[in-house]
Amino acid sequence: MLGLGLIGGSLLRVLHDAGHEAFGYNRSSATVDAATADGYQASTDLVATLRRAAESDAVVVLATPVTTIEPIVSAIAEHAPGALLTDVISVKQEVEKVIARAHPGARYVGGHPMAGTSRSGWSATDPTLFRGAMWAVTTTDHSDADDWLAVASIALLAGSQVVPVAPDAHDRAVAAISHMPHLTAAATAAVGAGESDLALRLAAGSFRDGTRVAGTAPALQRAMIEANGVAVLNVLSETIDRLIAARDELRDHGTAEILVDDGHRARVAYERLHEGEPEPISGVTVGEPGWQEELRRQAHQGRVWVG
Amino acid sequence: MLGLGLIGGSLLRVLHDAGHEAFGYNRSSATVDAATADGYQASTDLVATLRRAAESDAVVVLATPVTTIEPIVSAIAEHAPGALLTDVISVKQEVEKVIARAHPGARYVGGHPMAGTSRSGWSATDPTLFRGAMWAVTTTDHSDADDWLAVASIALLAGSQVVPVAPDAHDRAVAAISHMPHLTAAATAAVGAGESDLALRLAAGSFRDGTRVAGTAPALQRAMIEANGVAVLNVLSETIDRLIAARDELRDHGTAEILVDDGHRARVAYERLHEGEPEPISGVTVGEPGWQEELRRQAHQGRVWVG
Repeated sequence: MLGLGLIGGSLLRVLHDAGHEAFGYNRSSATVDAATADGYQASTDLVATLRRAAESDAVVVLATPVTTIEPIVSAIAEHAPGALLTDVISVKQEVEKVIARAHPGARYVGGHPMAGTSRSGWSATDPTLFRGAMWAVTTTDHSDADDWLAVASIALLAGSQVVPVAPDAHDRAVAAISHMPHLTAAATAAVGAGESDLALRLAAGSFRDGTRVAGTAPALQRAMIEANGVAVLNVLSETIDRLIAARDELRDHGTAEILVDDGHRARVAYERLHEGEPEPISGVTVGEPGWQEELRRQAHQGRVWVG
Repeated sequence: MLGLGLIGGSLLRVLHDAGHEAFGYNRSSATVDAATADGYQASTDLVATLRRAAESDAVVVLATPVTTIEPIVSAIAEHAPGALLTDVISVKQEVEKVIARAHPGARYVGGHPMAGTSRSGWSATDPTLFRGAMWAVTTTDHSDADDWLAVASIALLAGSQVVPVAPDAHDRAVAAISHMPHLTAAATAAVGAGESDLALRLAAGSFRDGTRVAGTAPALQRAMIEANGVAVLNVLSETIDRLIAARDELRDHGTAEILVDDGHRARVAYERLHEGEPEPISGVTVGEPGWQEELRRQAHQGRVWVG
């Protein structure tokens, strides 16, 4: 586990607590000391950690911010070139690009658990963090069946359900349902607070919930938005277009019907999709011809892989 | 109490349960029957209700949607012209306009409790709904001290704190912190759901909270947004400008720094203002020269009237 922050540290706990030989690297000795004191194996020595991974045929998990991974991937190429590599980073195309550059022969299957809190660091780690969450696992026409199953099994072990997805579809989807909500929350908060302390004093539930994620550390928000810049630009433009259409409708016809109705319908669709357990992907065996395309097809219908 | 929905019905409960002679009107006999069965006095006869109000020198509370109040205000002008009139409607300038037209001599002090749920109707009424909420009470240079204190005392009795505010400042503030969040939630929901069921399947906390109010009944959302159209147009334009600036910054410089930082600062300011109890308005006696302006001035600093 390369990186022992909220996500990486929590996943190290999951794997260790399940009886696997799991060991981590973090550049901060304070983090390594805290993990060691809690009974986990951790080191500030990246090379030694990677050599151990190579010797024990371990899966290597990238769990540091996307902006920091290039030298780490280069070190993997040098010290553990044959290891299966995955990650828990919130964008997929940018990670793929760095790996193609720094470790072109890597066995790589990307991952992204849709879990988190506004807290961060080892002290916030929690092995139950991933339970019931969706865990995107990249699935391309070149995905190796055994490697894919190995990465998917980590997500299942953590209590998540697997969503097989192409890297570009992943980045578009998270731009729309994760990165864009940060920008609309920021705009809502800034406009609301700009009005006066009187406005903030009157603010109640709609402002509280609608601006919650604007409270996340700005560096974390920026890192994920900027690493997914192209996809975010597209959904940001669509959001602007919708708001401009609503402004014109309100100015010219005195109504906000279209946007309010579309938004209501979308929210109802979201609530329905999240009622009860998701439908499992079925009728496909990983490894049979065309399995990757079939997994992606069913995932686009809202289904999940449960093993 | 004219209207026995969520807000009006809950307020009738507060007043009755506190031992006041409280009685309500609703055009629906099902609502009147339900309120009567629960031990409250209610009638479908508006004229009889208003005549009783006139005889008992009752405060009349408008608690129906703003689009329905004109004929009710006309009836008040005819059957209870001397009664002190208030309301619990989410816009203030539009209500003032209707009253100026239909009952120009009215003794009127506007009110707006910042409380609600996504449920509606008599079955959702709850006398604790207003506890700890802010209750805007309109305060103009012409406000009568005794009438203002009578309306403020209703808010205090319900467990709310009073925010004295001019009608136009109220409408700007709620456009920014209540109506605009409905439109950004709707845009976020529509763009997210438009991407695919895959995107909605991956949606987690930021989408869930950021789109919650888009689930409110569309008719209710439209009524409040459209009745405050001019103020909403202004904050909607400001929101669009901020998102366009963020798009340009992301496209040209690869960063979302300004919007993310402004949004974070605004959210932190909101959280700080809502930590602990608000500071009370002090050093002013209602009725002394300039009391209205002084109450408004202190409210603009985030202070509240607690009696």
